[in-house]
Amino acid sequence: MHEDFLQQAVDLARQNVADGGGPFGALVVKERRIIASSGNRVTPNLDPTAHAEIMAIRLACQRLGDFQLTDCILYTSCEPCPMCLGAIYWARLQAVYFACNRHDAAAAGFDDSFIYDEIPKQPAERNIAMRYLDLPEAGSPFSAWNRLEGKIRY
Amino acid sequence: MHEDFLQQAVDLARQNVADGGGPFGALVVKERRIIASSGNRVTPNLDPTAHAEIMAIRLACQRLGDFQLTDCILYTSCEPCPMCLGAIYWARLQAVYFACNRHDAAAAGFDDSFIYDEIPKQPAERNIAMRYLDLPEAGSPFSAWNRLEGKIRY
Repeated sequence: MHEDFLQQAVDLARQNVADGGGPFGALVVKERRIIASSGNRVTPNLDPTAHAEIMAIRLACQRLGDFQLTDCILYTSCEPCPMCLGAIYWARLQAVYFACNRHDAAAAGFDDSFIYDEIPKQPAERNIAMRYLDLPEAGSPFSAWNRLEGKIRY
Repeated sequence: MHEDFLQQAVDLARQNVADGGGPFGALVVKERRIIASSGNRVTPNLDPTAHAEIMAIRLACQRLGDFQLTDCILYTSCEPCPMCLGAIYWARLQAVYFACNRHDAAAAGFDDSFIYDEIPKQPAERNIAMRYLDLPEAGSPFSAWNRLEGKIRY
């Protein structure tokens, strides 16, 4: 079963190239039923976050009316990049199956492996510098959140 | 100047709590002009990817008509989580400024620090298991991409 769904993600990735997108595809499956699927739509949508996994997760959430996908499995043609890996955790998916890996992606010209290597660096030493500034009221949004009654945790 | 924009991101984060979102805010700035801004809209939008940084990046790309933000700076009330960090690389932003860090976020109940700790693990050993399956045609999307003439690289 897992092989069949993963093969569909690969087929979608290949078809997506012909449809003007990148060579990636992903499916969200719940109880053996496909809830959502997408190819990578970065360039046609002018959206650098429109990776196949992000698109499929967003669409599945809309269709299920939830901001989590607790009982769902993600099938993706390639190992998720750090952005998509983060999204998988926030969506709290049950499991992920993938066919190619980050090195295959790098060989095809995509930065997945490079971004993985950037993550453990100190923020200010990354290729894109990330600088901390000390503002006196920086913690005020978290204080407001902690005070809020009846909040929806996520 | 950087302090002023970052303060606006913090103010936006605090206001966003009152507006039903999470305690995070972000701005995309180009040539000292705010192109886009957003709070975290995960629960109101039913979208686990609707972090402030992702929302601001997507909106800035729409407004600039580009899938990259090469000359733009991101100001965010809190150190980006791995998902947003990945998005920052894909958008190829120039620099990032942040006010709180991943440990402040964790103290307020958010998984940023936990997800950072998951990334260096082997895929199959992560808290959300990520399993590689060996499919014979797994590389076919990349082959199709490599053969494609006139493709838009991203």
